[in-house]
Amino acid sequence: MGKTKGNLAVGQSGGPTVVINSSLCGVIQEAISHDEVGEIYGMFRGIDGFLKEQFVDLRRQSPEVVEGLRHTPSAALGTARKRVEAKDQELILKILKARNIRYIAYIGGNDSADTSWKLHQLATQAGYELHVIAVPKTVDNDLCVTDHCPGYPSAARFVAMAVRDTGRDTEAMGPASPVKLVEVMGRNAGWLTAAAALARQEEGDAPHLVYVPERPVSIEQLVADVERCYKEREHVVVAISEGAQESAGKDLGEEYASKEIDAFGHRMKGGVSDFVATLLAGRLGLKVRIDKPNYLQRSLMACVSEVDLDEAYRVGREAVRQAVAGRLEGMVTLVREPGQPYHCAVGIASLEGIANQEKKLPANFMNAAGNWPTQAFLDYARPFVGALEPKYVRLAKYFV
Amino acid sequence: MGKTKGNLAVGQSGGPTVVINSSLCGVIQEAISHDEVGEIYGMFRGIDGFLKEQFVDLRRQSPEVVEGLRHTPSAALGTARKRVEAKDQELILKILKARNIRYIAYIGGNDSADTSWKLHQLATQAGYELHVIAVPKTVDNDLCVTDHCPGYPSAARFVAMAVRDTGRDTEAMGPASPVKLVEVMGRNAGWLTAAAALARQEEGDAPHLVYVPERPVSIEQLVADVERCYKEREHVVVAISEGAQESAGKDLGEEYASKEIDAFGHRMKGGVSDFVATLLAGRLGLKVRIDKPNYLQRSLMACVSEVDLDEAYRVGREAVRQAVAGRLEGMVTLVREPGQPYHCAVGIASLEGIANQEKKLPANFMNAAGNWPTQAFLDYARPFVGALEPKYVRLAKYFV
Repeated sequence: MGKTKGNLAVGQSGGPTVVINSSLCGVIQEAISHDEVGEIYGMFRGIDGFLKEQFVDLRRQSPEVVEGLRHTPSAALGTARKRVEAKDQELILKILKARNIRYIAYIGGNDSADTSWKLHQLATQAGYELHVIAVPKTVDNDLCVTDHCPGYPSAARFVAMAVRDTGRDTEAMGPASPVKLVEVMGRNAGWLTAAAALARQEEGDAPHLVYVPERPVSIEQLVADVERCYKEREHVVVAISEGAQESAGKDLGEEYASKEIDAFGHRMKGGVSDFVATLLAGRLGLKVRIDKPNYLQRSLMACVSEVDLDEAYRVGREAVRQAVAGRLEGMVTLVREPGQPYHCAVGIASLEGIANQEKKLPANFMNAAGNWPTQAFLDYARPFVGALEPKYVRLAKYFV
Repeated sequence: MGKTKGNLAVGQSGGPTVVINSSLCGVIQEAISHDEVGEIYGMFRGIDGFLKEQFVDLRRQSPEVVEGLRHTPSAALGTARKRVEAKDQELILKILKARNIRYIAYIGGNDSADTSWKLHQLATQAGYELHVIAVPKTVDNDLCVTDHCPGYPSAARFVAMAVRDTGRDTEAMGPASPVKLVEVMGRNAGWLTAAAALARQEEGDAPHLVYVPERPVSIEQLVADVERCYKEREHVVVAISEGAQESAGKDLGEEYASKEIDAFGHRMKGGVSDFVATLLAGRLGLKVRIDKPNYLQRSLMACVSEVDLDEAYRVGREAVRQAVAGRLEGMVTLVREPGQPYHCAVGIASLEGIANQEKKLPANFMNAAGNWPTQAFLDYARPFVGALEPKYVRLAKYFV
């Protein structure tokens, strides 16, 4: 290894996804192919493990295990939510130097881009040559510049499949329990909730209403929307963001959630769907059922998008290529090529415009009423979410 | 159609499953093949539709739609939870005669077996020749006589996959949020919750604890179990039945659930996982996260068991064969053949010993501590749930 320039450290950060290990696999396999890269260190639980010098030797892993990462969901290295603080800087620099770490690939979302950016600034100030490349990952899809974020297509596919299938359940149950709420992740961004609309294959299919944080909805509108849909077909399936808003900055049911104290003296978290269920039952006298798939949205491998698996792998590889080629800082991006069929190339962008930014669902991706995504959104998301096949059937209503 | 003996009515009842339409497909395709069968009526929303004479003409459906039922989850005819009452009897008999219905295939669980049994008794008393065959269906797996119930293998597969994958998520998050509760359906029976144990592929895999209603667990034991598992590996994944018991007949957290009144004056349902999460957070100071996949357990087609799809189809066909061959009443059963590879033949049993009976998880399917299913259970369930492939990997913990 005469050409070795230094060692590489890779970490995973934030909430896991079904494809974050596919990115890790890409990083490892690409790193192995470059003589410039010496040791390949895996940070055990992200930057937290880095600071504790808990490094897993990734060169010693069997090729089967490395390849197996591509179909293993969640973060194999463990993950962290820690942000780098000023007091950590000295220690980081010391570890970088002691271990001769010259390349860092950090897989994560907004906070991770911030961490990567700070590592870059720190090294620059100290005159230490370090190549830090962030690898995008988040089911929230809220990173700037990139067309979309690896992890989002699979979570979106889960949401679309879940809404489609639980929607059929609601339809079958009929007036006995006609309202179903599906509470979807995404914090302040409505990307994942909007993906519920991909469930609809024909007129009348679930979901019937979609509410995202970017478009606040008054309690009066929500009740009126559900009532109208119920009158149309005797059942209503609603996809609602965990961060749905009543007005800008005010969570739906905020007062309600904060008032309740549980038996142990803790404030009840409640969740928006519990509030809305109680609201609808009270106002419309309808039985409401809730699906809150929580962590399954980001972990259920059975709903993985093949496009996502492949893209996650490619952004991992690209991070190492960029670092070895001399790029000092950046985040790998997905760049959609014009025309059909769908393809995203990989690109690179400076972390400066990405770290701590949040990309919300743009205005033209939701309809005027704020209760349904537009065709523009569907056209954006469908190619990487993939078709939901085979198409389901319905019996023709020939009554005799 | 010179040999026609009468018309057939088929209905779906109770909670839908991903394979109940596969049974419906079997009924229709078999019925079409018998000259004895005239019209094929689909009851719109089960016995409820029967009483309202809302029948869908199933002979007029295109063969593609009928075949498409095999991969369409939930109940295409709509379902009902209504039980037949004494006051309905006269009307039922009138409709049977007016429509010359001589064959009934009724797809459902315990309540549906009861309905089928009542229809049989009613017809017998009136001297009206009627062949009523129940087709088993329930994710709860609590019907007697049959080896297992169609619908259960797929729901069990969902639970196993969900626990496996959300378990990886919990493992990756580490001590920051180390406890995950997965609340599983099944009412008073622990069959579906026990299936969570199929998620474990190697030592240390989730789940780490499994609680079923048949084996009450004291609050003290539960806290001690979780604490012990946490000390072993810094994270704990618990599968817990929605009907988990503190002592025989007493739901876990019963007093808690019934005390709380929500903002609209309704009693809070709460659910066992909310109670247990608050309990563990309070007693152990650990962050607890909950997955409550609710209706996805019985509807998510992505987790279907191929064995289940096939068996559901075959029990549907067999119901019609039995009826046409002259059987007056019964439920189609799955009869496991000895030896390997796994195969279930179809059989038939009288409804008398099935209607309103409930098959609980037998004692030898749970360990002495009541917190983990035995090998006997795993051997019972694995063949029809199917292997979880490909096997996930873990990085070897070579620290450097």
